Amino acid sequence: MPQRLKIAAAGLGRMGKRHALNFLNRTPRAELVAAFTPDAKEREWAKTNLEPYGVTLYDDYLKMLEHPGLNAVVIGTATTVHAEEAIQAMQKNLHVLCEKPLSTNLDICRQVVAEAKRRPHLKVMCGFSRRFDASYRDAFNKTQKGQIGRGVFVDMSVHDIDLTLWFFGDDIVPKSVSAHGIRAVQPALEKYNDFDNAVGIVEFWGGKIAYYYCSRMMAHGQEDTTEIIGTEGKLSVNCNPQINLVNHYHPEGITRKVPADYYGRFEMAFVQESNEFTEACLENKPLPMKLDNAVKAVEIGAALQEALVTGRQIRFDETGKRQKTSRL
Amino acid sequence: MPQRLKIAAAGLGRMGKRHALNFLNRTPRAELVAAFTPDAKEREWAKTNLEPYGVTLYDDYLKMLEHPGLNAVVIGTATTVHAEEAIQAMQKNLHVLCEKPLSTNLDICRQVVAEAKRRPHLKVMCGFSRRFDASYRDAFNKTQKGQIGRGVFVDMSVHDIDLTLWFFGDDIVPKSVSAHGIRAVQPALEKYNDFDNAVGIVEFWGGKIAYYYCSRMMAHGQEDTTEIIGTEGKLSVNCNPQINLVNHYHPEGITRKVPADYYGRFEMAFVQESNEFTEACLENKPLPMKLDNAVKAVEIGAALQEALVTGRQIRFDETGKRQKTSRL
Amino acid sequence: MPQRLKIAAAGLGRMGKRHALNFLNRTPRAELVAAFTPDAKEREWAKTNLEPYGVTLYDDYLKMLEHPGLNAVVIGTATTVHAEEAIQAMQKNLHVLCEKPLSTNLDICRQVVAEAKRRPHLKVMCGFSRRFDASYRDAFNKTQKGQIGRGVFVDMSVHDIDLTLWFFGDDIVPKSVSAHGIRAVQPALEKYNDFDNAVGIVEFWGGKIAYYYCSRMMAHGQEDTTEIIGTEGKLSVNCNPQINLVNHYHPEGITRKVPADYYGRFEMAFVQESNEFTEACLENKPLPMKLDNAVKAVEIGAALQEALVTGRQIRFDETGKRQKTSRL
Amino acid sequence: MPQRLKIAAAGLGRMGKRHALNFLNRTPRAELVAAFTPDAKEREWAKTNLEPYGVTLYDDYLKMLEHPGLNAVVIGTATTVHAEEAIQAMQKNLHVLCEKPLSTNLDICRQVVAEAKRRPHLKVMCGFSRRFDASYRDAFNKTQKGQIGRGVFVDMSVHDIDLTLWFFGDDIVPKSVSAHGIRAVQPALEKYNDFDNAVGIVEFWGGKIAYYYCSRMMAHGQEDTTEIIGTEGKLSVNCNPQINLVNHYHPEGITRKVPADYYGRFEMAFVQESNEFTEACLENKPLPMKLDNAVKAVEIGAALQEALVTGRQIRFDETGKRQKTSRL
Repeated sequence: MPQRLKIAAAGLGRMGKRHALNFLNRTPRAELVAAFTPDAKEREWAKTNLEPYGVTLYDDYLKMLEHPGLNAVVIGTATTVHAEEAIQAMQKNLHVLCEKPLSTNLDICRQVVAEAKRRPHLKVMCGFSRRFDASYRDAFNKTQKGQIGRGVFVDMSVHDIDLTLWFFGDDIVPKSVSAHGIRAVQPALEKYNDFDNAVGIVEFWGGKIAYYYCSRMMAHGQEDTTEIIGTEGKLSVNCNPQINLVNHYHPEGITRKVPADYYGRFEMAFVQESNEFTEACLENKPLPMKLDNAVKAVEIGAALQEALVTGRQIRFDETGKRQKTSRL
Repeated sequence: MPQRLKIAAAGLGRMGKRHALNFLNRTPRAELVAAFTPDAKEREWAKTNLEPYGVTLYDDYLKMLEHPGLNAVVIGTATTVHAEEAIQAMQKNLHVLCEKPLSTNLDICRQVVAEAKRRPHLKVMCGFSRRFDASYRDAFNKTQKGQIGRGVFVDMSVHDIDLTLWFFGDDIVPKSVSAHGIRAVQPALEKYNDFDNAVGIVEFWGGKIAYYYCSRMMAHGQEDTTEIIGTEGKLSVNCNPQINLVNHYHPEGITRKVPADYYGRFEMAFVQESNEFTEACLENKPLPMKLDNAVKAVEIGAALQEALVTGRQIRFDETGKRQKTSRL
Repeated sequence: MPQRLKIAAAGLGRMGKRHALNFLNRTPRAELVAAFTPDAKEREWAKTNLEPYGVTLYDDYLKMLEHPGLNAVVIGTATTVHAEEAIQAMQKNLHVLCEKPLSTNLDICRQVVAEAKRRPHLKVMCGFSRRFDASYRDAFNKTQKGQIGRGVFVDMSVHDIDLTLWFFGDDIVPKSVSAHGIRAVQPALEKYNDFDNAVGIVEFWGGKIAYYYCSRMMAHGQEDTTEIIGTEGKLSVNCNPQINLVNHYHPEGITRKVPADYYGRFEMAFVQESNEFTEACLENKPLPMKLDNAVKAVEIGAALQEALVTGRQIRFDETGKRQKTSRL
Repeated sequence: MPQRLKIAAAGLGRMGKRHALNFLNRTPRAELVAAFTPDAKEREWAKTNLEPYGVTLYDDYLKMLEHPGLNAVVIGTATTVHAEEAIQAMQKNLHVLCEKPLSTNLDICRQVVAEAKRRPHLKVMCGFSRRFDASYRDAFNKTQKGQIGRGVFVDMSVHDIDLTLWFFGDDIVPKSVSAHGIRAVQPALEKYNDFDNAVGIVEFWGGKIAYYYCSRMMAHGQEDTTEIIGTEGKLSVNCNPQINLVNHYHPEGITRKVPADYYGRFEMAFVQESNEFTEACLENKPLPMKLDNAVKAVEIGAALQEALVTGRQIRFDETGKRQKTSRL
């Protein structure tokens, strides 16, 4: 049998389980050989769902990295340990697929990137699942073919900052950032300086704008509608959210359901991600996305957060360097 | 025959013609008795399309106001003369339906309102056509019934500032305003300090946010999609723009057409507007919208424009008074 | 003022009222001068809604036809008297717009057509509202331009038999007819030899097929979806029924409403019909549809009904002559 | 490792390849151990795509059945050999998943069923992929919960006869059958007594009707729209065909693409089918669909074909016995 990528899964929480099962069952060229969790309940689950299929269980992350013949790790633990675990895996010469974000701390993000740059033979990817979704890819390909002229404006969810980099180009530099938020349903968020609905605008050098919306109130389910507006046309992704192809006609009208959460919308994108990461590792192909972008996405997110909390416009010069004052 | 409202049309340009014909043909309780235009070409059109149906033509606005038995004027001239003509009509004791905006100058807007307040027996309305559109009315009624909880966020076109006042309530007060713009297709706009794509956010006191988008690049036609997001649900208006109910299935996919312009989308709303204005005049009923809102819409538009050009966040206190600095 | 068509309305039931008001208020070149109803309650309505606007009321149809200066009659009475009233009006030299059907009896239909042929200067039209609907017209125009190749198959409601003649061409000749029905909700219909759901197929000479569906169970409202399938494409009309452009997003999904009845769907088509009939009369232009078609639609309907009740296939030769047996 | 189902694939044509790969890569509890093809080109493909992953290749079907430890066969060969191969596999005590149809000959279909009845410990399934599609399942579940009252009418593609049995119940008995066809684009089909567009109606005992449409002219791609109409509501499946969630807004309108073929629409249903068949075999659970239905679907299809060619209505008594004459 041709070589398969021996991979270990770190973290078996909600998303970690999904990564483990995707590599176990839906990634033909990978072999899930090990899994780590410090959590007793998750270990019980793993004893039933992973161990019988030849997956060795560990309660020590570093020991798992010593698993014989291991090639790669998929990291799906808590955000706070993503970066440290990614660096430890690289130091053991392992490829890394890490859940986003690398870290919410920009300096720590940059350490991961630096470590990865020192080991260019390793494939290190921070997985932004939308990049693997068939609809977003179709939209991206249409923009590349010039079908909407130059894309100059995107309207999307704040979870999609990475999409902006994809659609506008990885070299894009933010110019100014504004944000506003409200506490519509959770007034208690005030003591955490947080909001339950927020919007932000990022203007980029070169004449492009991104608009982000974020809400904790989507009663009808997962939506994630995206618009990419170009000089000669527009693309929309998911402007009619639906869980499947059924419409129910009843005395009150016609109703369709919506996926309850992001995994209902993006399940197949995660499977695609596992397969493409595996192929890149096995065949030493370029990864489908750059690690640097994961830092830039956090950077933009941090600027939006600061603009939101301070009520000031944040500005950057053409090299991306933060400017001291929000005054012109 | 029951009393009909004798009305005169001022201005016979693109929109003025439509108002004149709507009052002539599609407003049963009104009678178009006079029309004014200073333009020779427009007069030629009026000789064929209005005069034969009993409409007296004038090339002097003030003389038209003296037309025997006249009750009301619909003003569809150039924006620069809206306010003056509205005031002159009121001074002749005539009801006024004025195209928006009253003026782009806030002080002049306020003069119109002041004049109207002095003559409370007159019906003076600045027509925002979306308020008369069946879909927006349905959306508004659903919000009034609490079907989406409290509406807290709207996403719409900048032409729709008035809709914000309608959906959030006429007494709402802006708190802070941000805006960003680009020149994507017309770099020459720089010398006019203008943009071809712009976005803005208005945060209101009381925890509500409006997001506006404005573009000169809608290749596919008129869109005007609106979202009203509430604490317990969401309403969208026109998220699938279409000119009629036809879908064309062809080898490249399935295509539907979009109205070419705002009149393709809102024609029936203008007819509804004519009829409701007429009824309010004849039966001394309250107008469907307050004149003050027309001022507030201009005020918010001006703040967006200032934020756009200066790159500063504009702030207001809880009484709506402009604050001096954009600093917190 | 230019000449207007003086028209009288016969019948002020549900549809009659609508015709009367459309000619009174929404047909600028027509003048509703008279109305007839034998019903006391309808007359009360007319006293409030028609008489004050200069409409003379009659309780005798023949007397109404003598109304001074009358040019035309719109007949919206009970189906059983359509034909007789149409003939009487023609005999008084009046143009006639008659609600469909002319009659459910084929011979009587043909008498109306014969009478109309004797008076070619009169405009006599049996109004099939779908022909005046903007969406159907767009679909028709697209087929005429060859955008779906040759149209060879239509799928529609049984109320739409006339549409088949329009899309396939007025000269089309039926070849064979099959139909099946059930009593899903009203078993008592058996004693009337009737059904509450029925489907039928009409094959035409020249290689075209129409499929019709008819149900009394459309819980969600008016639908009237039509498909026109051509050799190189397809057109659909109203495959996503909706009453307006609003979508309501709620915890159970996304819901849109549907018009409650055919008038909710076709109101503007009736207005268009009034205006086009008026123009044809005033300017002696060809009517937008042939009177013969009204007979052919009844003929096809009768064949479907016979096929439904007898369970036999009905056959016609290439001249449209009924064949004796359903055997090949 | 827990027991996995050792399965062999017969036939590596277009659909056979897909079955083989689905069992190899996307059916975790199955192990593709062998594959058979008599075709040299297909064998070349298998040498690259199957053999390296431990799949033994055979050019003799009967020899493949002797593969050590084999539990099951998936048959994706030409229709003419489906039945014989299914019977041979059963005789070797193997579970069988057979592509549809079992045979186009009713007697041969019945032989397969008879053989399967003699060996009740074997799982023998004729795969109708729509039964495994998430949207059809959702529609089915909604009908089971009574959300549209009793389902009484279905409108679907002729490929979907099996769906009728599913939605109306496996015990349903046809009552009468009508069909009509045309040769719209391929007049040469006349010599084969065949048509390129055909429609048929099947009325069932108990008051239910199915309408089927079949065309070789779907220029825009795969459609497979289904409607299930109940006494209190309606369900539609795929009334807005689309290949993904992208809409392209351009100067000609708004366009979405459609899957090019049935596999573009039903790929995941085939994966689901593989997994459910595997689970039923391993755990001796009931199969998700009865083998008898495969015969009944062919029977109804044959009646439609006969009605189409003869122009007669075909009738059955309440036991499903064919009646001699089409007369009442």
